[in-house]
Amino acid sequence: MIEVGPNAYGKSAIRLVKVVRSETPHRVRDLTVAIALEGDFDASYSAGDNAGVIATDTMKNTVYALAGEHLTGSIESFGIALGRHFLSEPQVGVARVSIEEHAWRPVGPSPDAFTRDASSTRTAVVAVGRDAVTVDAGIAGLTVMKTTRSAFEGFPRDRFTTLKETDDRIMATKVTASWRYVSGEVDYDAAYDAVRSTFLEVFADHHSVSVQASIWIIGKAILERHPDVEEIAMSLPNLHHWTVDLSPFGIANDREVYVSTTEPHGLIEATIRRSEGGR
Amino acid sequence: MIEVGPNAYGKSAIRLVKVVRSETPHRVRDLTVAIALEGDFDASYSAGDNAGVIATDTMKNTVYALAGEHLTGSIESFGIALGRHFLSEPQVGVARVSIEEHAWRPVGPSPDAFTRDASSTRTAVVAVGRDAVTVDAGIAGLTVMKTTRSAFEGFPRDRFTTLKETDDRIMATKVTASWRYVSGEVDYDAAYDAVRSTFLEVFADHHSVSVQASIWIIGKAILERHPDVEEIAMSLPNLHHWTVDLSPFGIANDREVYVSTTEPHGLIEATIRRSEGGR
Amino acid sequence: MIEVGPNAYGKSAIRLVKVVRSETPHRVRDLTVAIALEGDFDASYSAGDNAGVIATDTMKNTVYALAGEHLTGSIESFGIALGRHFLSEPQVGVARVSIEEHAWRPVGPSPDAFTRDASSTRTAVVAVGRDAVTVDAGIAGLTVMKTTRSAFEGFPRDRFTTLKETDDRIMATKVTASWRYVSGEVDYDAAYDAVRSTFLEVFADHHSVSVQASIWIIGKAILERHPDVEEIAMSLPNLHHWTVDLSPFGIANDREVYVSTTEPHGLIEATIRRSEGGR
Amino acid sequence: MIEVGPNAYGKSAIRLVKVVRSETPHRVRDLTVAIALEGDFDASYSAGDNAGVIATDTMKNTVYALAGEHLTGSIESFGIALGRHFLSEPQVGVARVSIEEHAWRPVGPSPDAFTRDASSTRTAVVAVGRDAVTVDAGIAGLTVMKTTRSAFEGFPRDRFTTLKETDDRIMATKVTASWRYVSGEVDYDAAYDAVRSTFLEVFADHHSVSVQASIWIIGKAILERHPDVEEIAMSLPNLHHWTVDLSPFGIANDREVYVSTTEPHGLIEATIRRSEGGR
Repeated sequence: MIEVGPNAYGKSAIRLVKVVRSETPHRVRDLTVAIALEGDFDASYSAGDNAGVIATDTMKNTVYALAGEHLTGSIESFGIALGRHFLSEPQVGVARVSIEEHAWRPVGPSPDAFTRDASSTRTAVVAVGRDAVTVDAGIAGLTVMKTTRSAFEGFPRDRFTTLKETDDRIMATKVTASWRYVSGEVDYDAAYDAVRSTFLEVFADHHSVSVQASIWIIGKAILERHPDVEEIAMSLPNLHHWTVDLSPFGIANDREVYVSTTEPHGLIEATIRRSEGGR
Repeated sequence: MIEVGPNAYGKSAIRLVKVVRSETPHRVRDLTVAIALEGDFDASYSAGDNAGVIATDTMKNTVYALAGEHLTGSIESFGIALGRHFLSEPQVGVARVSIEEHAWRPVGPSPDAFTRDASSTRTAVVAVGRDAVTVDAGIAGLTVMKTTRSAFEGFPRDRFTTLKETDDRIMATKVTASWRYVSGEVDYDAAYDAVRSTFLEVFADHHSVSVQASIWIIGKAILERHPDVEEIAMSLPNLHHWTVDLSPFGIANDREVYVSTTEPHGLIEATIRRSEGGR
Repeated sequence: MIEVGPNAYGKSAIRLVKVVRSETPHRVRDLTVAIALEGDFDASYSAGDNAGVIATDTMKNTVYALAGEHLTGSIESFGIALGRHFLSEPQVGVARVSIEEHAWRPVGPSPDAFTRDASSTRTAVVAVGRDAVTVDAGIAGLTVMKTTRSAFEGFPRDRFTTLKETDDRIMATKVTASWRYVSGEVDYDAAYDAVRSTFLEVFADHHSVSVQASIWIIGKAILERHPDVEEIAMSLPNLHHWTVDLSPFGIANDREVYVSTTEPHGLIEATIRRSEGGR
Repeated sequence: MIEVGPNAYGKSAIRLVKVVRSETPHRVRDLTVAIALEGDFDASYSAGDNAGVIATDTMKNTVYALAGEHLTGSIESFGIALGRHFLSEPQVGVARVSIEEHAWRPVGPSPDAFTRDASSTRTAVVAVGRDAVTVDAGIAGLTVMKTTRSAFEGFPRDRFTTLKETDDRIMATKVTASWRYVSGEVDYDAAYDAVRSTFLEVFADHHSVSVQASIWIIGKAILERHPDVEEIAMSLPNLHHWTVDLSPFGIANDREVYVSTTEPHGLIEATIRRSEGGR
């Protein structure tokens, strides 16, 4: 016997820009939205029955139609409004709304000119179910570097180990982090700013003995300082910077000239969470 | 109390080319390998203890070192050999090896000239644990189109629905599929070719009433024809092709001229599996 | 005094798919088209006068509108038809039409199922002027490799030279080539196939002492065999494959295991042309 | 007779990071460098003679070796030093050095933590010849938007024109600009900052009747304010933002909700230059 297992469907890469003209300067909201529905959709697969299949084109229209009224605050709030809308159809069990917000900053004192700040992307994934709503906020594409106070020593050596121990290396990574809020009232915009600030502050201040240790130190600080955050997951590529050997040319190179690389890269992924009551 | 939750670490984007010179023509094996380890690594986070942290640089070296002896057959077999190697360290619980194989074809009768076939990528994810090994094979980047025998009708209409029903649309998608083999002996190369052939054959032959129905029809055929396959997951973007309205120019356009789009796109994801005995 | 210098404007990334249903199997024409106009447009800059500025939106409409009637043969012919259309406006001096054709192949014997052949892209740039038309055909994204019969020796050595001479290296490159046809009647589809075949045949057969020498050998053969071709320009990145040093592990590696790289890469660009009468 | 026409070769995508530790905070210089040589290289093509072919690997080494001593100020100065180095070989006629600088900003008051500012890339192309040096500075990837004071009216209408005139549209573009400095002493860092500031200020302040007019107004202002600049070339895609028609849903949409698009896009390219004495 063959059956349909886990499944979801929806619309991705919905590009939405909303200009709020009532503020000075204007405010530009630039989102990429994805909708995914789970629920009672087996018949759409095994019986070719489209009676319950909300068209993904309708999802797209809905995102634009609701943007005027519901995209007035955080992307998390907009996601919740969208998710609740799709639950009006009984076959939908969970509506998952993923939103990326691309930042635009005003140019000087101009009321109507903006420049895109591509240095990171704010993300949110809202899952609206019949009984519960989960809200995950996050950040993507935030590239950071420590030029000192980063080491990697004491690791095991086997036949294939050639890496030298170092007490002073460059650490660079492109951060993808996502944290889940406790249920209840959260000021999502303020919480995002606060978590991002803590991330950068602790990243800057700590001494790193490994990327793993950095994840722990940063994650622990975020959980300690922000009671609204239940857990945080980080995915940190280790973007290696190798000291260039200039000795064949009679040139010293004491942590000055590096080659930066993207292939291959380390990849360290972990969740830091509250061990009691948090889940 | 704060603790380390689920975590893994390793090396990604290890680019390996092996030239088999004992065959005529030569054979080019072009792989991108990623290693990820799970196990007893909490202390590397919470105590900054690197004593068990096999360096990701060592992982990279290991992939190259073992390629000579162990990359002689399928990427799945190479992945199993790599995974077993990393289990020689007791702190490792599961070694997950992900491999992409990029195809090269001989140019004419030449023994030593090749052209890259970028039309799809073969993938494998092998998870070697203390008690079990799972092998998932797959394909990525296979872009296919049906120019007729594709419809989408009978879907629900609400206030935000503007999509017209159609009994003849273009269906195009960029396939990502992954299937799990039953445990035991499998001829991975032959199985891959067979599943890929079935995919293309059924894709070409069936009448599609929706992407969901296509996933079912193709997935069911693969499970029926290939007893080695326990389940198959597909992720199919619906790459919309919209008929261009040429009527303002007095030009008819009966399913002839389309604009192809990537943003936004539908996204349909499902697993088709055996309902008894398969898991 | 400040003035407008060289300028052009137009529409890029026009995505057009045409399905030819009168053939069995159907034929899928998948193009990306760009239009650029040069001519008497200074006033649109310095005086803000749009009276002569054909809207780029109109260009897009025109591409779709003319596809039915004029996209019946080669992309070069379609480009010429498009270019001539835009010259109907007197302010246009040259209409440059750039077209990429993305290949689709039928799946088995099916009349209506196709798979995208992403292994290379056919290109054309047609410049239709008041007095002359130039037609450049080309190929992009064709990745090729020689596993032997490639060397690099005899180069100069200075203080910063560490590269060893080698009489047997891997040569790999991602070809971008563009050739200009002599004016007059050319069977563009046949010519494209012929030049592409010559490229691959000579690439496979020749012994390479450098990428430069390969460009010469291939380019010369193309000019010798194809009188319709006036000159050919090639841009060949040297995608280095470095032999992995496995000696620290006691493993021999005689041209077997390589690391493939993309950064940094050599880049060799040259035009091979007829020295008399060709221009 | 067949001959070698225009040609150049070199190394691209050389990734270099230099950490200046003598400043507090440290300074991170993150460059991507490309070297291209032109000169007496015909024999390397037509005779396979490598005697004059400086290995591209040597070029890479040279970039790293000279970074310590010569990358102390602007990327333009580093480019000139690199170019002069390569002219020490007599067969080199022109050494072209292209550099992208990727910006890093300190995190808070930390002396050693940085975040990548991906909002734009500074560029320089230096061509060092036997008789002359040209220096082109530029900016890439600077994405800007005007939410009002942008129009497009008065353009010609033909059979294929459907675009409506508008006196209030969004204008968005991803700027690539490059300006040539007059020969002689220039403070390249100060000049870059000044030109960039003028670009943003004029972009923000002006009323745009077309992208062409914007290029003129911005370019003219840059030439007027910066006598060091001889000419400026801009390549501005018109990244269309279309007002979403929400009227089918009974929702008004007065310049509030837009769909942002990348395909197709307008593309306007022009050089603004001094008409006397500048060239």
